Amino acid sequence: MFGTVLVANRGEIALRVVRTCKEMGIRTVAVYSSADEDSPVVRMADEAVRIGPPPARRSYLYAPAILQAARLTGAEAIHPGYGFVSEDADFAEMCQAEGLTFIGPPPEVLAMLGDKAEALRVLSAAGLPVLPGTHRPIASAGEAVEAAAGIGFPIIVKALSGGGGRGMAIAMHPSELPEAYARARSAARAVFGDERVYLERYVESARHVEVQVLAGLHGQVLHLGARDCSVQRRRQKLIEETPVPGLPEDVAAELCERTVEAARAVGYVGAGTFEFLLDDAGEFHCIEVNCRIQVEHPVTELVTGVDLVREQLHVAATGTPGITQDDVRLNGAAIECRVNAEDPARGFLPTPGTIESLTLPAGPFTRVDDHVRQGMRVSPFYDPLLAKVSVWAPDREQAIARMERALSECVVTGPGVSTTTAFLAGLLAHPLFRDGKHTTALAETFDPA
Amino acid sequence: MFGTVLVANRGEIALRVVRTCKEMGIRTVAVYSSADEDSPVVRMADEAVRIGPPPARRSYLYAPAILQAARLTGAEAIHPGYGFVSEDADFAEMCQAEGLTFIGPPPEVLAMLGDKAEALRVLSAAGLPVLPGTHRPIASAGEAVEAAAGIGFPIIVKALSGGGGRGMAIAMHPSELPEAYARARSAARAVFGDERVYLERYVESARHVEVQVLAGLHGQVLHLGARDCSVQRRRQKLIEETPVPGLPEDVAAELCERTVEAARAVGYVGAGTFEFLLDDAGEFHCIEVNCRIQVEHPVTELVTGVDLVREQLHVAATGTPGITQDDVRLNGAAIECRVNAEDPARGFLPTPGTIESLTLPAGPFTRVDDHVRQGMRVSPFYDPLLAKVSVWAPDREQAIARMERALSECVVTGPGVSTTTAFLAGLLAHPLFRDGKHTTALAETFDPA
Repeated sequence: MFGTVLVANRGEIALRVVRTCKEMGIRTVAVYSSADEDSPVVRMADEAVRIGPPPARRSYLYAPAILQAARLTGAEAIHPGYGFVSEDADFAEMCQAEGLTFIGPPPEVLAMLGDKAEALRVLSAAGLPVLPGTHRPIASAGEAVEAAAGIGFPIIVKALSGGGGRGMAIAMHPSELPEAYARARSAARAVFGDERVYLERYVESARHVEVQVLAGLHGQVLHLGARDCSVQRRRQKLIEETPVPGLPEDVAAELCERTVEAARAVGYVGAGTFEFLLDDAGEFHCIEVNCRIQVEHPVTELVTGVDLVREQLHVAATGTPGITQDDVRLNGAAIECRVNAEDPARGFLPTPGTIESLTLPAGPFTRVDDHVRQGMRVSPFYDPLLAKVSVWAPDREQAIARMERALSECVVTGPGVSTTTAFLAGLLAHPLFRDGKHTTALAETFDPA
Repeated sequence: MFGTVLVANRGEIALRVVRTCKEMGIRTVAVYSSADEDSPVVRMADEAVRIGPPPARRSYLYAPAILQAARLTGAEAIHPGYGFVSEDADFAEMCQAEGLTFIGPPPEVLAMLGDKAEALRVLSAAGLPVLPGTHRPIASAGEAVEAAAGIGFPIIVKALSGGGGRGMAIAMHPSELPEAYARARSAARAVFGDERVYLERYVESARHVEVQVLAGLHGQVLHLGARDCSVQRRRQKLIEETPVPGLPEDVAAELCERTVEAARAVGYVGAGTFEFLLDDAGEFHCIEVNCRIQVEHPVTELVTGVDLVREQLHVAATGTPGITQDDVRLNGAAIECRVNAEDPARGFLPTPGTIESLTLPAGPFTRVDDHVRQGMRVSPFYDPLLAKVSVWAPDREQAIARMERALSECVVTGPGVSTTTAFLAGLLAHPLFRDGKHTTALAETFDPA
């Protein structure tokens, strides 16, 4: 196992990774921007290195500073968390060149699955159903109109380097396509520095279902069940759960097995998530692969007892997972809520500010992944995630009741600071959510007032 | 199910019970002494009634005030937690007389098992091994000396109404017996208002092992595995775990099955714990039954997924547990540490005071049962338990590492306030504890310095 691991991230996921490293006797190095110097991970890691000013491109995305910190501290491996450099093939390659282990898939796999159009071609060839689409970049509005005929409307125009729901535009009718093409292209250029886009059939009413896999270097691939993340706002997940409500066990098992085959076929390594849309007709469509630990991994940990970060480290250090498929038993139900510093009453405007008082939930079958402390300033520079609250119960109904109880314990106050707990509680109480019949439209249109 | 439950307790267990009631849609009533008006349970319960001044005999032990609060709030049942009125047969009878459900065994069972000497006779008749002893009160020092001949030294003189390690004295040799008799008698009178004592062989080097049972009204009895609570100081448990380290699975299973038979034979009802000493020769000796939820119940919940408070409520409302023995699968290992406001450097003197900053552990597979908040005053009137930290892992070794990580996150500061976290961490690191070869002597003699 590694002697020292550098965690190239911030917030709750950085603390999450440090926690498991500590438990494994691994020395940890935190890196932080000057906006995060009060962050608990800076104190809880064995060593902490300031790598730059608040803007991510000058710190958490700035490879030279991260690699320099690794050199200075004798780190042998880098855990990238999620977001930032976690799916950056170039960063993974730079690590390799420095003799550092990048904890994630190899650069080739990141490059292949990071090109969203190529990924769809590869996943389709590996046997997974994908939506009709061009699966290659489109060079002009005219080409888009031509290609659309073979796809059918509505159509979504997506950034080739996309992800996280950004750099997209929807055309409900042929007449809207040229404008959607132009809009997506300009967003893609602005957000990803790559204006290439491709077309795909747009599924209006769908559920978001994903499969957690874990793979070794030599074709050992296993799955840890499926999650439902259909409660989203602007394609940001708010509530995640497992198992997928209403999905028959045999259908879920088949989806997981097909995903394992596909992961093996594409040479996947490490922990990863294959994302699907489940449409009204009950058909799955693979939309992308997330080549990293997910925000929502705790729900999988709660029903399996597997520490996914430990498994990531195990694969990175030894080439194989520390568990086999037979070790994975899915037990009960788990739900996670993301508590954000946002004001639902003001269009989910982020509410950075200093936290005056902070009470997070505790008690039976309740897990909190935290990173803020009383007196800390919530930075306006990064995502507004304050804490993830996760619960386990023998079944979904009890898990929902437990989550309602847990959310009722959250108290975060401070001048200007508000949180999404009441909004989340409203979603949990919604009849469509209760029945497990909600789609990704639920949170978009939900008004708790 | 009950519409309203009154929780006749304070601290973490009161909050623990309220949490499960909330999840079950049960309205809760908290009662509190004037020393506890800042306690979070006062705010988190649906209603809260002040029942008296700080001394327990005028509030948490004062039945008329508790029953009056139940009447005023329309409570249908009383959950007594642990300690205070939880094993008081008279209190259970008063509840009955008021038409209230006492959540625990019926008064007859409490009376029978509360008389520690009679309990041993009954448990022995029910097939459980007990230590040689008088199993009846001794009326004079002369009678003690006479009885001792048939028992063998060392001998422990114990209060008939005892429990919690109080009202006891040890005689290593016959010459010490008269004085031990006098000492135990006077302690028993002072602590329990009942000077009757009995004699029992004293086991110097032993482990404390206990079996969690759950029983319905009609002979449905099941067990939820065994716990080891050998890390004790002055007979107060500090660290508890399950499964029992080093105990072969078949031996543990047999102990649990014999306990289930005995619980059925004595007519036990509700959640209860049968406590045993496990001596150097590998023999079990039943020492008493705790007729209530235990402080250490979370470790059992973590390996079984069963909410024991929910089961208590289920038995009390319906007469049967909500689960069967087949539903109980023991999975992995769990450890609990009790974080006390005590100063190990000053003989474990309680350190009441105002909490200035408070950080409790969080993260993967970590559970906290809390009840204190930043700015709250830790009262000198009650036990010094600040929080229970519990962790789960696939095996004991990982659970220990996880607990070490969790304890390292505890920060409780305030003028005069110190905690036992460093002492607990020292015990976890002790070679005897690591090897699972420790006895109840470990913490008594352990010096972390």
